[in-house]
Amino acid sequence: MEREERKTGVVLIVHEHYGAPLLDAARALVGELDVKLVEAPLEEPVEQLRGRVLQVAAAVDSGGGVLLLTDLCGSTPANCCLHVLATHPGSEMVAGLNLPMLIKLSTCDRSRPPAELAEELARTAQRSIQKAGDLLDKGARSGD
Amino acid sequence: MEREERKTGVVLIVHEHYGAPLLDAARALVGELDVKLVEAPLEEPVEQLRGRVLQVAAAVDSGGGVLLLTDLCGSTPANCCLHVLATHPGSEMVAGLNLPMLIKLSTCDRSRPPAELAEELARTAQRSIQKAGDLLDKGARSGD
Repeated sequence: MEREERKTGVVLIVHEHYGAPLLDAARALVGELDVKLVEAPLEEPVEQLRGRVLQVAAAVDSGGGVLLLTDLCGSTPANCCLHVLATHPGSEMVAGLNLPMLIKLSTCDRSRPPAELAEELARTAQRSIQKAGDLLDKGARSGD
Repeated sequence: MEREERKTGVVLIVHEHYGAPLLDAARALVGELDVKLVEAPLEEPVEQLRGRVLQVAAAVDSGGGVLLLTDLCGSTPANCCLHVLATHPGSEMVAGLNLPMLIKLSTCDRSRPPAELAEELARTAQRSIQKAGDLLDKGARSGD
């Protein structure tokens, strides 16, 4: 199969229950967003969560690999993502999920491989973290 | 009043309705979190939202200024935060809100001024955005 035909599947793995309303907020701003969500309640046994994550990842992997977006590096949900990476070659994970990352995702070309999309989303999310002081400094420096 | 007695008040201004469940998730992980939330539904008139944000900011400002955490730079909620900065000297805003930012906030010393807290939260949030590839590369480089 040509790379162009293989879309990167995207799965969100998010602590507790803010994943769905976060996706709702992103969709209210940008429209449709082709993403599967796995909620990760703290009380769920790790093996069960891992099984659900692997199942959803398998369902969205059409041969182009999977991009996993999660909220907290080193947490149980993030560790479950690492199991997907081990079983789905070419897949990638980005931690630190925020709204700007999802907004950027809405305009990404899904025919690109997970690693490229991950790089772009991580860069966008990092740039989205700004202090007002920085913005004002930049304005002052550029003479705005 | 001594700086030590003046606590920095913290307000979250978040698009739509994921702010409350995001705070719930953070509290489930770290316990209590002294934060006021302002939801910003897309359909709310700007003047009304701005009024609510200013009101909550005034309520939490005990003389030490306000730290505003919002999700999307350049958006209406973020612009409402700029009005707070104009009326509450020493206040600061950080955009790009994510779960690691809130977790870090739980251990921050609120007797520190908003600009210092903002710097620390922004740095933590930026570092929280990681790709699995980066982590594996670091592990390989350090011989882990």
